[in-house]
Amino acid sequence: MEITIGMFGFGKTGAIVAKEVLKDEQCVLKWIIRKTDTKEGEYASHLFGFEHDEGRIYSSDKIDHKTFYKENPVDVIIDFSSVNALQNHKYLAEEGIKIVSAISKYEPEHLEKLKKLGEKTAVLYSPNITLGINFLIEASKVLKKIIPNADIEIVEEHFRGKKETSGTAIRIAEYLELDKEKQVNSIRVGGIVGKHEVIFGLPNQTIRIVHESISRDAFGQGAIYAAKWIIDKNRGIFSMEEALALNFAKKPEKSLK
Amino acid sequence: MEITIGMFGFGKTGAIVAKEVLKDEQCVLKWIIRKTDTKEGEYASHLFGFEHDEGRIYSSDKIDHKTFYKENPVDVIIDFSSVNALQNHKYLAEEGIKIVSAISKYEPEHLEKLKKLGEKTAVLYSPNITLGINFLIEASKVLKKIIPNADIEIVEEHFRGKKETSGTAIRIAEYLELDKEKQVNSIRVGGIVGKHEVIFGLPNQTIRIVHESISRDAFGQGAIYAAKWIIDKNRGIFSMEEALALNFAKKPEKSLK
Amino acid sequence: MEITIGMFGFGKTGAIVAKEVLKDEQCVLKWIIRKTDTKEGEYASHLFGFEHDEGRIYSSDKIDHKTFYKENPVDVIIDFSSVNALQNHKYLAEEGIKIVSAISKYEPEHLEKLKKLGEKTAVLYSPNITLGINFLIEASKVLKKIIPNADIEIVEEHFRGKKETSGTAIRIAEYLELDKEKQVNSIRVGGIVGKHEVIFGLPNQTIRIVHESISRDAFGQGAIYAAKWIIDKNRGIFSMEEALALNFAKKPEKSLK
Amino acid sequence: MEITIGMFGFGKTGAIVAKEVLKDEQCVLKWIIRKTDTKEGEYASHLFGFEHDEGRIYSSDKIDHKTFYKENPVDVIIDFSSVNALQNHKYLAEEGIKIVSAISKYEPEHLEKLKKLGEKTAVLYSPNITLGINFLIEASKVLKKIIPNADIEIVEEHFRGKKETSGTAIRIAEYLELDKEKQVNSIRVGGIVGKHEVIFGLPNQTIRIVHESISRDAFGQGAIYAAKWIIDKNRGIFSMEEALALNFAKKPEKSLK
Repeated sequence: MEITIGMFGFGKTGAIVAKEVLKDEQCVLKWIIRKTDTKEGEYASHLFGFEHDEGRIYSSDKIDHKTFYKENPVDVIIDFSSVNALQNHKYLAEEGIKIVSAISKYEPEHLEKLKKLGEKTAVLYSPNITLGINFLIEASKVLKKIIPNADIEIVEEHFRGKKETSGTAIRIAEYLELDKEKQVNSIRVGGIVGKHEVIFGLPNQTIRIVHESISRDAFGQGAIYAAKWIIDKNRGIFSMEEALALNFAKKPEKSLK
Repeated sequence: MEITIGMFGFGKTGAIVAKEVLKDEQCVLKWIIRKTDTKEGEYASHLFGFEHDEGRIYSSDKIDHKTFYKENPVDVIIDFSSVNALQNHKYLAEEGIKIVSAISKYEPEHLEKLKKLGEKTAVLYSPNITLGINFLIEASKVLKKIIPNADIEIVEEHFRGKKETSGTAIRIAEYLELDKEKQVNSIRVGGIVGKHEVIFGLPNQTIRIVHESISRDAFGQGAIYAAKWIIDKNRGIFSMEEALALNFAKKPEKSLK
Repeated sequence: MEITIGMFGFGKTGAIVAKEVLKDEQCVLKWIIRKTDTKEGEYASHLFGFEHDEGRIYSSDKIDHKTFYKENPVDVIIDFSSVNALQNHKYLAEEGIKIVSAISKYEPEHLEKLKKLGEKTAVLYSPNITLGINFLIEASKVLKKIIPNADIEIVEEHFRGKKETSGTAIRIAEYLELDKEKQVNSIRVGGIVGKHEVIFGLPNQTIRIVHESISRDAFGQGAIYAAKWIIDKNRGIFSMEEALALNFAKKPEKSLK
Repeated sequence: MEITIGMFGFGKTGAIVAKEVLKDEQCVLKWIIRKTDTKEGEYASHLFGFEHDEGRIYSSDKIDHKTFYKENPVDVIIDFSSVNALQNHKYLAEEGIKIVSAISKYEPEHLEKLKKLGEKTAVLYSPNITLGINFLIEASKVLKKIIPNADIEIVEEHFRGKKETSGTAIRIAEYLELDKEKQVNSIRVGGIVGKHEVIFGLPNQTIRIVHESISRDAFGQGAIYAAKWIIDKNRGIFSMEEALALNFAKKPEKSLK
């Protein structure tokens, strides 16, 4: 089944995600709406060396958002733009277009707006939409339920220049109810792109779940997974963790039956 | 809620498990049935330095299995003995006693018998009942469903003396449909107790799930988890993976709701 | 003390190395000799956004190698070009210019030529000139001497596309006298840039030396280290391992004196 | 060449070391001097299941230290006892008996005494005499010399019960001139016996040297290595790091000659 995609944002990460969508067999990138008018009217497909026309680029200021989505319908939009794009999401909801939002800087009030949108259409929100990180989070939560008495610590390694503690590590610490000061260990050396390790210690065994980032392209794969997952939801607001968690339950293993 | 436990087997591993059961607050160890008559009539609790009387030891040959379980009812039995004990399991089933079986050497015909028992009571069977290894297996299966295009390899490290490939690694390879020759890598050096690592590779990220064994006590914690899980099942045969898998689904996370 | 550098080769890796040399405070990049005449007469410094003139580019076919090195003397040349460049190395030797050669495809006969050059000047040859890999090799050799009874295995991880076993891993296996079939384990998953791990197992402890590649720029740092090391050698042929090994011995630690 | 060994201390670690010495082909355990008179007059060899008589046990209070060493000469003594034993070391020095001291609690004044002894005989002192940890320390120092611009951090993992930061980690931090607060990361989970990892980060590569403890027997192997190394020294005080460092230099590799 073909899935038609619209995108908000064509910055560094947005472009990487667009490329992944173009490469995906099931997805068709109908259009991209960006803030500036650079490359306006061109097709993203050409910028990535494809022959065919796919992913026409529009400038947000030069289209009428009230009518655009009715005239250019898609199944799902993937938002890698900025907080501002949120103001036009209501027009998406009216058309029943599903929303995959990967904005990292949302404040509580923005999340409130997203929830409202969830009453009209299906919205998936994730500040770090890579599959690996979200699997790490979900699997860690499950493991904590299985072995509540385990001691848990997080080690995150990043390039020397990264000043603050990894936001992802802090988020994991919150989910696992850890002491962010004592149980999150930050290593800052050289050019490590990004590594997150959650260590579960029991008296007689140690379990480690490790995620190593190689490049930002990972965001594209995560966004596509989210788009394919949300396509058959009607309304409600979901998290990437849910997209993976529900997947866990889908077919319970019956290894002996 | 108190859970009464009976045990089959009091060998090296059985004793370790009994000790863990004695230490568990929710579990009460009613009795232990062993092959020999060593320590017969004594209480396992005393052997581990506890003051009170718990876990009376019986010799399998000196009790009447037809009546013993009716006269000495328990909620669950944990079996760390041997294949032979299977012949008396029917009396357990008649009393509706749940069975947690951790015999590693079962042949297909034994598994058939277990399934039959599953028509009368709830049976959980796992050849490697440590929580960690089973979490590793279950999480790996889930991750493969989430990222089916990932490349997967297994690395297992054990002490130099271990000749054959790790049975656990082979089992994981079967679950993940890997080539046991090419995708299972066996390291044999020094005195490593046991390490299993499943590596999932995507173009832009790598995910590793690692289990390191420190000692055999891990079996006790796994058996207790299984006993607590099976207590509210009526009948059927289950695997440790299921016990963990169902746990995943129990309360799906609603991180934004 | 300033070190003047000449370079052979300005391909993908050569350019990365040139950039590192330009950035190094002690080194001055006098010139670069490349096969083609692209950018001929320009300064490499400008190509990397520097204001000043440094690293003039020459085309190998358009200079007279017999006289060039006398007219354009340098302390050390760094060779990242190809086997062919070797034919002109004799003119370098005549001028007493030190040679750092990082050609990976040399055949035995080429190495013979290098040895001959070593009778007139100092030559350092290394097919993988990154500091990390060479430290890993040297440290592994030393550790094997310290604990000859240790079991040793190598694990090398690379992107799925890499068909053959890592040449570096094979080289390490040769140095450590391991069975290349049994004791070198190759993992091929996703997009891993390159990871080499040497595992030393003793009955009661395990030691791991691990090298993870992030990008090719590492070659530049290795070449610069080699150039600074060879500058005060007169003649002879050396390996990168020696450059590091001798460094070990330079000042033996006297931690208690 | 046979090496005759005397031992001070027969506690938990001392006994483990004695067993390793008994198993070593080159070493002969002449006697063991312990504080208490337990097993006095017996042979340690029998306690470990050996048939022959080796390693007679003496009680420190019941022998005349002034004459004992002249009457019962050995090549080297290995000291795993306590600070108190130091008072009799002068009699060892007089006989030219080499000393391998593995007392962890020495204060500066005790180290002063050891240095004095070093004027008469050869003394090797190491508070953590396992080969692996000392290799890790020495290799880390060397690597820091090779890549002084690398960022360095230490991660040490131990069982939850271990309150303070690992003394070994602190010692490594001192050698590498790291900030003990910021660059030493302590993980406390479950039953991890002991793991020390030194991470060296460069912009394009990461190097990790990792030591994992499996059991205390490692001390025996380290002590035997030290005894074999010190046997041909005349006088002076040495560290385990030196024993390994000098080993580095012994035969510099000439891989191309």
